[in-house]
Amino acid sequence: MPVPGPGYSITVRVEAPPSATAAGDLTTAVGRTGAVITAFDVVESHADRIVVDITCNSLSADHADDITEALEALPGARVRKVSDRTFLVHLGGKIEVSSKVALANRDDLSRAYTPGVARVCTAIVKNPEDARRLTVKRSSVAVLTDGSAVLGLGNIGPEASLPVMEGKAALFKKFAGVNAWPVCLDTQDTEEIIRAAELIAPAYGGINLEDIAAPRCFEIEARLRERLNIPVFHDDQHGTAIVVLGALRNALRVVDKDLSDCRVVVCGVGAAGSAIIRLLRQKSPADIVAVDVDGIVHDARGDTDEHLRAIAAETNAEGRTGTLADAVRGSDVFIGVSAPNLLSAEDVATMNDDAIVFALANPDPEVDPLEARKHAAVVATGRSDYPNQINNVLAFPGFFRGLLDAHAHEITDEMMLAAANAIADVVDSNDRVNASFIVPSVFDSTVSPTVAEAVRRVAVSGEEAGGGGSQGGAAGSSAAPAGVPGFADMGDMEAEAEF
Amino acid sequence: MPVPGPGYSITVRVEAPPSATAAGDLTTAVGRTGAVITAFDVVESHADRIVVDITCNSLSADHADDITEALEALPGARVRKVSDRTFLVHLGGKIEVSSKVALANRDDLSRAYTPGVARVCTAIVKNPEDARRLTVKRSSVAVLTDGSAVLGLGNIGPEASLPVMEGKAALFKKFAGVNAWPVCLDTQDTEEIIRAAELIAPAYGGINLEDIAAPRCFEIEARLRERLNIPVFHDDQHGTAIVVLGALRNALRVVDKDLSDCRVVVCGVGAAGSAIIRLLRQKSPADIVAVDVDGIVHDARGDTDEHLRAIAAETNAEGRTGTLADAVRGSDVFIGVSAPNLLSAEDVATMNDDAIVFALANPDPEVDPLEARKHAAVVATGRSDYPNQINNVLAFPGFFRGLLDAHAHEITDEMMLAAANAIADVVDSNDRVNASFIVPSVFDSTVSPTVAEAVRRVAVSGEEAGGGGSQGGAAGSSAAPAGVPGFADMGDMEAEAEF
Repeated sequence: MPVPGPGYSITVRVEAPPSATAAGDLTTAVGRTGAVITAFDVVESHADRIVVDITCNSLSADHADDITEALEALPGARVRKVSDRTFLVHLGGKIEVSSKVALANRDDLSRAYTPGVARVCTAIVKNPEDARRLTVKRSSVAVLTDGSAVLGLGNIGPEASLPVMEGKAALFKKFAGVNAWPVCLDTQDTEEIIRAAELIAPAYGGINLEDIAAPRCFEIEARLRERLNIPVFHDDQHGTAIVVLGALRNALRVVDKDLSDCRVVVCGVGAAGSAIIRLLRQKSPADIVAVDVDGIVHDARGDTDEHLRAIAAETNAEGRTGTLADAVRGSDVFIGVSAPNLLSAEDVATMNDDAIVFALANPDPEVDPLEARKHAAVVATGRSDYPNQINNVLAFPGFFRGLLDAHAHEITDEMMLAAANAIADVVDSNDRVNASFIVPSVFDSTVSPTVAEAVRRVAVSGEEAGGGGSQGGAAGSSAAPAGVPGFADMGDMEAEAEF
Repeated sequence: MPVPGPGYSITVRVEAPPSATAAGDLTTAVGRTGAVITAFDVVESHADRIVVDITCNSLSADHADDITEALEALPGARVRKVSDRTFLVHLGGKIEVSSKVALANRDDLSRAYTPGVARVCTAIVKNPEDARRLTVKRSSVAVLTDGSAVLGLGNIGPEASLPVMEGKAALFKKFAGVNAWPVCLDTQDTEEIIRAAELIAPAYGGINLEDIAAPRCFEIEARLRERLNIPVFHDDQHGTAIVVLGALRNALRVVDKDLSDCRVVVCGVGAAGSAIIRLLRQKSPADIVAVDVDGIVHDARGDTDEHLRAIAAETNAEGRTGTLADAVRGSDVFIGVSAPNLLSAEDVATMNDDAIVFALANPDPEVDPLEARKHAAVVATGRSDYPNQINNVLAFPGFFRGLLDAHAHEITDEMMLAAANAIADVVDSNDRVNASFIVPSVFDSTVSPTVAEAVRRVAVSGEEAGGGGSQGGAAGSSAAPAGVPGFADMGDMEAEAEF
């Protein structure tokens, strides 16, 4: 059953006759409707009336009506207005573009714009990689969507998906200083999405694919990775896989099991499930059993979808068949990225001792976490109101920060595993791991820098090995106007601080 | 001949033996090279040496070499490093994306992101126009280019054009609080550019086409205006035309002439020239004579290019033929948006008394303004080092601010004329107009708001007449979750300030 939350926080401005009991009458009326009052402010106080703002968490629009009626039912009380704080937060948008440079006078203008800017353009013509040092490409990420699979809302289109993409951009900045910008495409055609991403790529240091429906998202990601020389990340796949693997490492530590001895059930083979399976295989568990709406995925099922056939080929070594219940019986780890209430407490009871259950379906998990906890040693969900929230925000901001700092051209499994370990280390390193604490809080400010550094280190070594074009100091000097000595000293961003 | 400017400002860190004359020796050496010293800072002072930062405006990379050599020629002096301030300003880019909302705790997160954001998405699904109130679309503009005609640099491509587009975005914010973002397209195919603009449109309240080569830019602009429900502006055309018409109104006031009595020569029929001619015709001058590389444009010239044929049909009522010199002889106004040094002082002398000369070619005007001033009553250029700088920054920030505030769906000539008059009024209204002051300074903070208000007023009346979809208060209430009373009070942005 839903509880009143800040996502539906409203502020009611109400006028009432002044009396010793006025405040009490108003708050009691609101409280009786089931709303949770979070603030009570007297706005005006007159001889004949008081005006009060009551802020409370409610359940729904209907609930807001109930609150209004309850207040107006009080003798002499009148509701002046009801404001929805969530909508107020969104008025005019949640992000803005700011100038990092001074434009106070003619000299500023001639350095940041014409004529000075022309020399910077020329430097980039000479060495295109310098766009990663001398422009916002250094730190910019496109949050690209077609609005086809947004949150739990489904296919709502590009305009309506914008508030989510803006929120994502705000998180990118808040947690990793990344400059992310929403790219909400007015098409759901795979070829057009791919082409649009290619066309806008020059201004970005990376692309974060967001809320694009499967299986379309797989082809878009794969084709863009081939064509672009900037990293392409699909948060629904890679972000989730990274956090799940980090959490799993710590969960196994709690139950003192080794993944190589564990049978892992992955329920749901969409974007998240497929990516989890792929990354999980790098750590060679005893076996992985994938389950979809038709039950256990296996070779003999005769699936025609090549995506499913690939999963069948890579998993289920023992050729199991049957239902989700059959899959979990005798397994060690359940990872659900599917739908609400597919698993019962009884099913969990059939798992091996010290079972690990990640029920990540949003907003309602595959199994009630409190029920699951009766039979499993470690339980995690996607929800913030239970322990062990598996939240992508632990991964994507720091992951991109690391890619951008390394001027990376691509994303490798090695980078994703490094990020997963970094997230696990934040909890593990200082020995705080326990059944209710396998991942850090999303507000733990050490997570993002730790992930960034881990990814950067792998990326830089990879670029050096793979030779991904001139970067860092080298690119630095090449941006110098011919024959200006010592210019290379500016290769590192620190130079910025020198003046 | 070029002069040392802040666009090429360098800082030289030099080490020298301490002596009574050290400072003098160093500055003299730099001064002798023709550089202009703007700062002298002692960084370190030791018994055996001093370390000094000398900041100066130079001419070129070679000049920077000369300065270094001149300093190292001094006994015991050693140049440690030379830093180019223009490049330092560009390190890491000139713009950033910032979050307007707090994300300090779980409650903030649940309003700005999940679960609260879902209700905002749903409101936009119900009423798409609300994207202009509840997202960054309210104030966002795409600065869109294919990098084919950037400044004087020509076709340098999308990556190298990025510093210019970022500079533009910084100006948008500085002068009008508009959130502009660079869209640098990796194609120069007209159809692909048009399609790309359509695909990214949902996240923007307007599109500013920038530095796209003619004649491609005409078709792109025209087709996008047909297809999109957000305004499409081409700064090289419309921005220039607006400022030119504003300046011309005041110039005519100085010489006390009426445009209806004036023959106007427009030299250059590219993006700017064509737009100037189109807008100028709205004010019915006695005649307009267009001139291109082949001389006066006229019907009988047999041009095949339809763009030229259209201009021939709209101008040159008297069917003049001949050269630029023939065109200006006996004319009242010369507007050059072409190439350097096409016009001689002698040509200007053949114009009517109280001639007006706008020589706007950059960086070098069609005629030396000092020479032109000998024979013309009013002279303007695009340069900042002469009086009367015709600069688009007087127009585009405020123009878009007005469009966005009106939730405008299109741009009309009426809006452009209103903007031109607003710019002229800033100088004219308080009777400050004179031959050296026909346009306000680019740093006059009253220009942008004045232009914005003029455009908004025209746009709103137009939208009301044309009925451009639900907006303002109406849209406001429609964003309300069903049955939340008083929600309409939030229709206006001011509501934001209430909490």
